[in-house]
Amino acid sequence: MQERGRQTRARLIEAMRRAIHDKGVSRASVGDVLKATGAKKGSLYFHFQDKDDLALAALNEAGEDFHDFVAEALSRGATPEEKLEAFFQEVLAQHSAKGFVGGCVFGNTSLEMADADARYAELMQDVFEDWAGQLAAVIGTAQEAGRMRPDVPARSLARQALATIEGGIMFARLSKSEQPLRETLETLWALLGAGDDSARAPRLTGASA
Amino acid sequence: MQERGRQTRARLIEAMRRAIHDKGVSRASVGDVLKATGAKKGSLYFHFQDKDDLALAALNEAGEDFHDFVAEALSRGATPEEKLEAFFQEVLAQHSAKGFVGGCVFGNTSLEMADADARYAELMQDVFEDWAGQLAAVIGTAQEAGRMRPDVPARSLARQALATIEGGIMFARLSKSEQPLRETLETLWALLGAGDDSARAPRLTGASA
Repeated sequence: MQERGRQTRARLIEAMRRAIHDKGVSRASVGDVLKATGAKKGSLYFHFQDKDDLALAALNEAGEDFHDFVAEALSRGATPEEKLEAFFQEVLAQHSAKGFVGGCVFGNTSLEMADADARYAELMQDVFEDWAGQLAAVIGTAQEAGRMRPDVPARSLARQALATIEGGIMFARLSKSEQPLRETLETLWALLGAGDDSARAPRLTGASA
Repeated sequence: MQERGRQTRARLIEAMRRAIHDKGVSRASVGDVLKATGAKKGSLYFHFQDKDDLALAALNEAGEDFHDFVAEALSRGATPEEKLEAFFQEVLAQHSAKGFVGGCVFGNTSLEMADADARYAELMQDVFEDWAGQLAAVIGTAQEAGRMRPDVPARSLARQALATIEGGIMFARLSKSEQPLRETLETLWALLGAGDDSARAPRLTGASA
């Protein structure tokens, strides 16, 4: 693909990501994307078969960016606990910065599309399993070092963290305050047995801290 | 209100509950309700100010029914652990019976309406806090009896259970299988320290059991 074609494709994807974030998959339209980019219809259908093709490409790219976001946050700490803590902190900071509006695009898309279209469901499963895999690697290292409870498999604890975080984001969106998400993360931290050696809570800063 | 008026009101609410369950609040319409009930427009607007008034009444009634559902499940066990186990079992059974389609109407409504309309957000908070209160009472009793971890407040553990269950339902909907929800409930059980005296997993039966 020519450089100009690549740029057009990238702009179409970016506009669809924005539309999905703002309105959800069902209400995001090809019209939104054409309006936002100024691209011609023929150009869009040169790059993408139909709206779903574009929406799935947009969500796939969002998933890749999220992979990098998780990896970057986890890379900040030296110990496994510090890595998890840095990730929790980033989750809180990101949603706090958005005023707890919009939530998690993967959670939103899951609830919206799980029953409607298997392609979206599969892609969301991939995103969550990738996320769980990254957390499980850190949790497994902490377990081996005797610094996190060893009686539940790392992958199960990682999936639990995901489920909890998605629920906590939902509660924070309802109250438009960080308190429910903060409480959820602090409780998760205690339940994982993280930092038990020093009996400390995770160091989470934020709007109300 | 006359008996006939009460019956009409109840039928309108029931039809709106169905529409919200099937399509979500935004897409559920007065037209759906009129079609399903055969009621006249004038009759609907005699009972309800507008669509939101009807939708909020429908969700409020769903919340009351859910309160009873939780109370009934918790009443089945003799000990606090058995009560929680019975509730987990009911959650798994209910969503399994629906083939993991549709999910939790309160979770769906929360994600759909949290940013759009504070009245829905407040009602959903009330439903979740009522649910958390019922679980917290059981967890608190278990803590006092030394049968559940005492280091995290019962209310925080209860909210954690809710967040986890909502996330677990989402994962089960993505895969259309009970495995993710079952794993979530079993992990939650271990994290709560429930049944630690016998080191047993919760007794959850279901489609794949």
